Amino acid sequence: MKTLADIGERNAIARISKIINTQYDGFSIGDDCAILPMNDEYLLISTDMVAKYTHLSSNMSSWQIGWFLVAVNLSDIAAKGGTPYGLVLALGLPRDLPVSSFDELIQGAHDCARAYNTRILGGDTKESKEMVLTGTVFGAVKKNEFMARKGARVSDVIAVTGYIGKAAAGMLALEEKIRFEETVLKGLFEPKPRIEAGRILAQSGCIHCCMDISDGISTSLYQLQQQNAVGFRIDSSHLPISLNLQKMFNKTSDKNMIQYALQYGGDYELLCTLSPDDFAFVQSQLEQISVPFTQIGLVTKNKEILYQWSGKLSPLFNEGYEHFTSKASNDPIR
Amino acid sequence: MKTLADIGERNAIARISKIINTQYDGFSIGDDCAILPMNDEYLLISTDMVAKYTHLSSNMSSWQIGWFLVAVNLSDIAAKGGTPYGLVLALGLPRDLPVSSFDELIQGAHDCARAYNTRILGGDTKESKEMVLTGTVFGAVKKNEFMARKGARVSDVIAVTGYIGKAAAGMLALEEKIRFEETVLKGLFEPKPRIEAGRILAQSGCIHCCMDISDGISTSLYQLQQQNAVGFRIDSSHLPISLNLQKMFNKTSDKNMIQYALQYGGDYELLCTLSPDDFAFVQSQLEQISVPFTQIGLVTKNKEILYQWSGKLSPLFNEGYEHFTSKASNDPIR
Repeated sequence: MKTLADIGERNAIARISKIINTQYDGFSIGDDCAILPMNDEYLLISTDMVAKYTHLSSNMSSWQIGWFLVAVNLSDIAAKGGTPYGLVLALGLPRDLPVSSFDELIQGAHDCARAYNTRILGGDTKESKEMVLTGTVFGAVKKNEFMARKGARVSDVIAVTGYIGKAAAGMLALEEKIRFEETVLKGLFEPKPRIEAGRILAQSGCIHCCMDISDGISTSLYQLQQQNAVGFRIDSSHLPISLNLQKMFNKTSDKNMIQYALQYGGDYELLCTLSPDDFAFVQSQLEQISVPFTQIGLVTKNKEILYQWSGKLSPLFNEGYEHFTSKASNDPIR
Repeated sequence: MKTLADIGERNAIARISKIINTQYDGFSIGDDCAILPMNDEYLLISTDMVAKYTHLSSNMSSWQIGWFLVAVNLSDIAAKGGTPYGLVLALGLPRDLPVSSFDELIQGAHDCARAYNTRILGGDTKESKEMVLTGTVFGAVKKNEFMARKGARVSDVIAVTGYIGKAAAGMLALEEKIRFEETVLKGLFEPKPRIEAGRILAQSGCIHCCMDISDGISTSLYQLQQQNAVGFRIDSSHLPISLNLQKMFNKTSDKNMIQYALQYGGDYELLCTLSPDDFAFVQSQLEQISVPFTQIGLVTKNKEILYQWSGKLSPLFNEGYEHFTSKASNDPIR
C-alpha cells in the first residue's frame, strides 16, 4: 500500500490541489498565503504547523518556540506584501509540560506579534502526545499591491532581502558543537519576518513575483518554477552570505558554504524578481529601512535552474527538506 | 514543578488571556471565535485542533475525520451568527499514512466545506508522529447581528437547536458494543454545524447570548457563567433528547440518560438565551428550515447552575471533559 513516505510532501499537496481546486483571479493553491477577494483588497490567510519531532530543536527555549511559531506565519504575509491583522494559535501540548514553559511559550508568541504591530486574538489548547503547534495568521493587501509567486519574466533580476545562511550557521554551530556566541543561534531560533520590507516591495509596484525562502533558496526556485515557465541562474559570488556562516569557512568562496547558503532554509528572507531597470530604485527604498537588497541572479528563458561558482555553471539541485520522505529528525528547524 | 496536568485546560486559557490581553468592543478571548472589527462587520476567526490520541476514534473513516475537522470549525462561526468565508488546514501526518486515506481525508474536509457553501483555501502539510490536524475558519457577521457569549439576562429562557445526545448515543453504541445502525455513529462522527440556524438566530435580533455545545450542555453553562453574572436552571423533562439515545434506555426519564444528555459533548447544536416574549417568534423562524428550537430552562438571578429532575432540583456539576487533567483516551471524540 502506497504511503505518504512514497510520494512526499509536494505530491501530497498536488493531490490536495486536485481535490479542492480553489482558484481566485487566476491565483491558486501553492502560494505563500491563501487569498480571498474582499472589495479592492485580498484577505490573506496562512497556516503553519510546527511539530516538536520535525521542527523544534531541544536547544530552543520555550520563549523562542513561541516567537518562532508566530514569526514563520508572519513571514507568509510579508511575502505577499500584506499587513497582518492578527493570529490565532492552536496548541497541542503534552500534559507534563511545566506551567512555566507554557507561560514562556505564550509570552514569546505575544512578543513576536507585538514586535510586528499585530496581536494574538485567540486559539485553542488541546492535549497531545508530542508538542504540535499551529499558527494561523490573516492580513490584507490591496489587490494592485499583491505579490504572487506567479509573474517572473525572462531577463528579470532575482533579488533577495537581508543575509542568507543565518539559520544554516546556527544549525552548524549546534551540530558541530563548535564554540559560538548566542547570536548565532538566534539566526536559527528567532527569525525576523520581513513585514516592513514586504510592504515596501509591494508599494514600489516593481515586483513581478515574490515568496519567502523558508525552505531554502534552491527549493524556493523550484517552487517558483511550478508557477512560471522560466529558468533561473544564480551567481554564487553575489550571494549576501551572513557573517556568522562566513566565519565558519576558510574562504569566502568555499563550495560547501555556498551549498549551505543555497540549500538550507530557515532564513525567512524575501526572494523576488523585477526588471533590471527598477532594481536600483527598489534597493534605495529598502535602504531607508536599512534592509539590504541584493541581486543574486537572472531569470532565463532556458528552463534550467543553474548556479555559477568559480566561473563554472552547474545545475542547482533541489536538496531542500521535504516532509514524509526525508529523515526528519536530522533536521531540527524546518 | 507544576505541569499543565495540575492546572487543567481552563486555567491554561486564563493564563493565555492574561498575557495576550486582547479585547475589542468589550468582547475578549473566551468566545467561540476571535473577532476583529472591519467597517460595520466583525471578521470571525476560529481554530480547532484535533489530535488522534485525544479526539479521534479508530472507528472513524478517513472521510469522517476530514468532515469532522471542518464541521467543528464551522460550528464556531455558526454560534456567532456568521457566514463562513473559507478554511485553511494544517495537517500533521505520520509518514506511514496510506495515500488512499490521505485522499479520503481531504475529500471529507472538502465535502463538508462545500455542504456549507464554503471552501478550503489552502493549508500546510507536515510530518508528525501522531495525526494532529488543525482547521482554521474565518467568516464575518454584521456587528449588530453578532451573538456573543456575553449578554444573558435574568428571566431569559435558555433554548437549544436540534436534538441533544446524538453524539452520546454514538459513543455508547461503540463502548457498550451493542447492536446499532450506522446512523447512530454518524451522530458522533459527522456533526452538522448549524450555519443556517445561526444566521436565522442572528437575523432575528432576539438572541442575548449564544454558543455551541461542543463540550456538552453543563460545560457550556459554566462557560457562559464566566461571562454573565447569572445562574441557570435546566428542566430535564424538556430536553430534546435524540431518539437514538432514548432507545438505549428503558424510561424516557432515566437519570443516566439525562446525565449523558447534559454532560456529554459532541452535538454541535447552538445554545442561546432570549426573552420569553420572543421565543415563539424565533421558534417559528427556525421551523421554516425544519430546525427544532426547544426551551430547556431559565436564566436565574441566583448564581447556581441547577437542574430539575423528577420534581427535585439538584446542582448540575461540570463533568464535561477538560484537557490535560482527565484521562483523555477514555473519551474518543472531544
